[in-house]
Amino acid sequence: MKVSEIAFLLHSTPMGESEHEIHNVAALETAGPADLAFVEGARSLEHAKVSRAGCLLVPEGMTIAGKTTVAVPNPKLALIRIFEALHPSASPPAEFHPRAVVAPDAKLSADCSIGPNAVIESGVSVGAGTRISPGVYLGEGVRVGVNCFLHPNVTVYSGAQIGDRVILHAGVVIGSDGFGYVFAEGRHVKFPQLGKIVIEDDVEIGCNTTLDRGSLGTTVIGKGTKIDNLVQIAHNVKIGRHCIIVSQTGISGGAEIGDYVVMAGQVGVGERAHIEDKVIVGGQAGVLPGKIVRSGSVVWGTPCRPMSDHKKTTARLARLDALAEKVKALSQRIEQRE
Amino acid sequence: MKVSEIAFLLHSTPMGESEHEIHNVAALETAGPADLAFVEGARSLEHAKVSRAGCLLVPEGMTIAGKTTVAVPNPKLALIRIFEALHPSASPPAEFHPRAVVAPDAKLSADCSIGPNAVIESGVSVGAGTRISPGVYLGEGVRVGVNCFLHPNVTVYSGAQIGDRVILHAGVVIGSDGFGYVFAEGRHVKFPQLGKIVIEDDVEIGCNTTLDRGSLGTTVIGKGTKIDNLVQIAHNVKIGRHCIIVSQTGISGGAEIGDYVVMAGQVGVGERAHIEDKVIVGGQAGVLPGKIVRSGSVVWGTPCRPMSDHKKTTARLARLDALAEKVKALSQRIEQRE
Amino acid sequence: MKVSEIAFLLHSTPMGESEHEIHNVAALETAGPADLAFVEGARSLEHAKVSRAGCLLVPEGMTIAGKTTVAVPNPKLALIRIFEALHPSASPPAEFHPRAVVAPDAKLSADCSIGPNAVIESGVSVGAGTRISPGVYLGEGVRVGVNCFLHPNVTVYSGAQIGDRVILHAGVVIGSDGFGYVFAEGRHVKFPQLGKIVIEDDVEIGCNTTLDRGSLGTTVIGKGTKIDNLVQIAHNVKIGRHCIIVSQTGISGGAEIGDYVVMAGQVGVGERAHIEDKVIVGGQAGVLPGKIVRSGSVVWGTPCRPMSDHKKTTARLARLDALAEKVKALSQRIEQRE
Repeated sequence: MKVSEIAFLLHSTPMGESEHEIHNVAALETAGPADLAFVEGARSLEHAKVSRAGCLLVPEGMTIAGKTTVAVPNPKLALIRIFEALHPSASPPAEFHPRAVVAPDAKLSADCSIGPNAVIESGVSVGAGTRISPGVYLGEGVRVGVNCFLHPNVTVYSGAQIGDRVILHAGVVIGSDGFGYVFAEGRHVKFPQLGKIVIEDDVEIGCNTTLDRGSLGTTVIGKGTKIDNLVQIAHNVKIGRHCIIVSQTGISGGAEIGDYVVMAGQVGVGERAHIEDKVIVGGQAGVLPGKIVRSGSVVWGTPCRPMSDHKKTTARLARLDALAEKVKALSQRIEQRE
Repeated sequence: MKVSEIAFLLHSTPMGESEHEIHNVAALETAGPADLAFVEGARSLEHAKVSRAGCLLVPEGMTIAGKTTVAVPNPKLALIRIFEALHPSASPPAEFHPRAVVAPDAKLSADCSIGPNAVIESGVSVGAGTRISPGVYLGEGVRVGVNCFLHPNVTVYSGAQIGDRVILHAGVVIGSDGFGYVFAEGRHVKFPQLGKIVIEDDVEIGCNTTLDRGSLGTTVIGKGTKIDNLVQIAHNVKIGRHCIIVSQTGISGGAEIGDYVVMAGQVGVGERAHIEDKVIVGGQAGVLPGKIVRSGSVVWGTPCRPMSDHKKTTARLARLDALAEKVKALSQRIEQRE
Repeated sequence: MKVSEIAFLLHSTPMGESEHEIHNVAALETAGPADLAFVEGARSLEHAKVSRAGCLLVPEGMTIAGKTTVAVPNPKLALIRIFEALHPSASPPAEFHPRAVVAPDAKLSADCSIGPNAVIESGVSVGAGTRISPGVYLGEGVRVGVNCFLHPNVTVYSGAQIGDRVILHAGVVIGSDGFGYVFAEGRHVKFPQLGKIVIEDDVEIGCNTTLDRGSLGTTVIGKGTKIDNLVQIAHNVKIGRHCIIVSQTGISGGAEIGDYVVMAGQVGVGERAHIEDKVIVGGQAGVLPGKIVRSGSVVWGTPCRPMSDHKKTTARLARLDALAEKVKALSQRIEQRE
C-alpha cells in the first residue's frame, strides 16, 4: 500500500514520499523502510526522529523534518485501521478435523472450524466463522455465536451462552461452579450451582481467566468488555458494557460493575459491592463487601478511597516518622516550661 | 414434590397451599410458581414479599402474608436438602470413551467414566463412580478415589493421591514441582522435587488452582476443605480440615493451616507461617513468613494484625491529614507564646 | 552409593560409617537409614539430632555425635549433586505417540518425545531430548530447543521461540495476545498484537502462568530466570537473567526487570516500570507505573519504598492510635494553661 493510499484511507494528506510502499506496521524502534509506525506523546517523538520507519502516523499539526508522515487525530487508532487494511482477517478455512469429538446432535455451522481433540457435547451450537481450537471443551447445550475465536484448551461448562465475535484465550474457563457452601454439622455443604452465564458480544477474555456461573441467578459479562489474564469472576457477578479489567483482579460473588469501568491489576472487589459507571479503580485496591463506589469516581487503596485522598495519606505516611518526632519534641517542650 | 412433602422431609409444617407442586429451586428474584426459594436476612425479606416462588423456605417464626411457606432453622441448608431430593445425583453412565488413552496396567473401576482424550499413565487407579473428563491427564501411579469428578483439562502429576468425593474443576494442576532452587555459581540450581501430595476426602478445588507436591516432604489438603479458583498452594503446605480458601489466595512453602480456617480472597501467607484453627483472615491480608496466628483470631492487613486494631488504624489513617494539621497548629501556638 | 563415595564426589571426608549404603535423598524428618539428608541452620540441627537418616550433609565445621556426616560448604547444593548422581536424568524414550497430531512440515528431532493428543502446527521445530506432554499445543512456527520439558496442557501461540533446557509446567500459556486497546467511538478497539516472545535457555515457568507476546515489540524472559505458578507477564516485558519471580506476581506492559532480581509473591509492577539489577521486592508490594527502582535496593509496600523505611512506617502505624491520643492530650494541656 502506498503512503498516498494510507493517507486517503485516513482522510488525510501525506507529507514526504507519497509513492513509498508500506507492507506492514511496526513499533517506532524496530520499524524498517517498509513499515508504518505511529507517534504519540513527547517520549515517542524522540524515537520518531531516529526511526527507520517508511512512514509515520503523527498527531495533527506535527511534522518531523526528513520523515514521511501522515497527520491524523488519533495515530494509534489510525495504525489499527491501516493494519486491518493490510491484513484483512481471513475467515479461517472451514475445517472440521477428523480428530474432533462431536455429539451427533450438535449444531455446527458449515462455516465454522473445529480443531483436533476439541470435544463438543450434546446440544451445542456453534455459529458461522467461529474457530474452535484444539483441546477446547464445550459442555452440553453451550451456545457459541458467530466469528468467535476460542483458543486451545478453553473449557466451557454446560449451558453457557457466548455471543458473537467473542475471543477466549487459552485456558479460559467459563461457567464453572460458584464457590458457595452452607456450614452445617461441622462441614461445608455444597450449595447447588444451577445458574447461568452469559458472555455478550465483542467480549475478549485473557488466558487462564476463570468465570463462574450464577448459583441460582446469572453471571453476565456485558458487550464489549475486555478482561485480561488470570482474572477471577465469581458467581452472580454482573459486569456492564465496555469495561476494562486488568490482570489478576478478582470480583466476588454478586458484585455489580457498571459500564465503562476501568480496573487496574490485582484489584479485589468484595461480595455484593456495587461499582457504578465510569469508575476507575487503581491497582491492588480493595473494594469492601457491599460498598457502593459512585459513578465517575477514581479510587485507590484498601479500603478504597478517592484517589486524591489516598495519595495524600500515602505521602503523609512516608513522613509519619517525622510527625511522631515532632509530637515528642512538642511534648518535651511543654513539660520543660511547666 | 408437593409442599407438604417438602415440609415433611424438613420436619416442619407448611403454611398455605400444602398441595402445590414444586419442580425446582430458584433465586427469590427469578423463581416462578413451580419453584422453591429461600429467605434469609432482612434484605431478602423485601424480595420475598414480591417473589413469584410457589413456596418459600423461611426462618423459624417468620410468616409472609399471602405466601406459602415452610419454616426451618436454616432455610439455605434446607434448600440444598430439597434440591438433592428433587435431583438425586445420578452416577454418571460408566462410559469408557474409545478416544481415551489408557496404560494397559491402569486399574480403572468398572463403574467409572473416562472421557475422550483423557490420558491415563501406568500404575494409575481410579475408583467407582469417578468421572474423568475430556483432556484430563493422570500421571504415573496417581490414585483417585471413588465418586470424584475431575473436570476437563485437569492435570495430575505422577504419584498424587486423591481421596473420595473430591471435585477438581477445569484446569486444576495437582502435584507440580515446588519452586525451590539453590543459588550457586551465579545461577539457580533446581532442588529435587520428590515429595508427595495428598488431597483428602470431600475436598473441592476451583478452576486453574495450582497445588505443588512436597519438595522432600508432603503437601496435604485436609478432609472437607474447599478451595476457590486461581489459588496457589506451594510445596510442603499442610492445610487442615474444613477450611475455606477464597480465590487468588497464595500460600507459601511449608506454611501450616489448622482446621476450620477461613481465608478471604487475595490473601498472601509467607513461608512457614502457622495459622492455627478457626482463624479468619481478611481479604488481601499478608501473613509474614514464620508468623504464628493464634487459634480463633480474626486478622487483617499487611502485616496482619487483629481485625479491630487494623480497622482502627485504617480509620485513623483517613484522618492522618487532620492530625498533621493539628500538630502544626499546636506547634505554632507554642512558638507564639514563647 | 557408599558414604565414602558421596564424600569423594563432594571433595570431602566422611565422619562415621563410611561403608554405609545410601539409595536416596529425603527430608531430615522422614529420612530412613538408606537416605541422605542435609542440615542447614539452627532449627534444622535439632531435627538432625533425632533424624534416622543414614548420612547427613552438614556445614563445614559441624559434627553431630553418633551420626554419620559429610561436611561441605553448601549442604543443600551438595544434596542436589548427590541426588543427580543417584538418579541420572534419563533422556525420555523417544516416543512419537500415534495419537499426536503433527503437521507434515514440522521438524521434530528424531530424539524427542511427543505425547498423545499433542497438536503441532505447521513450521514448528522441536529439538533433541525435548519432551512434549499430552495435550500440549504448539502453534505455527513455534521453535522449541533441546532437552526441554513441556508438561501437559501447555499452550504455545504461533511464533514463540523457546530456548534449550526450558521447563514449562502444566497449563502455562506462552505468547498470547497482549491486553491492548484504543478507545474510540464508545468502544475498545483491539490493537494488533503482532510482536514476538523469546524464552531463553534454562528458564522454568510454573503452572498456569501466562506470558503475552509483544504488541509490536518483543517479550523476553532472560536465561536462567525462574517463574513460579500463576504469574502474569504482560506484552513487551523484558526480564533479565537469573531472576526469581514468586507466585501470583503480575508485571505490566513494557516493564523492564534487570538481572538477578527477586520478587516475592503477589507483587504488582506497573506499566513501563524499570527494576534494575539485584533488586529485591517484598511480598504484595506495588511498583508504580514508570517508577525506577535502583540497582541493589530492597523495597516493600505500595507504593514501594526502601524496606527499612516501610518497616518503620508499619511499626509507627500500629501505634498511630497512641500518637493521636498524645496529640489530643497535648492540645488539652495547652488549652488549660491558656
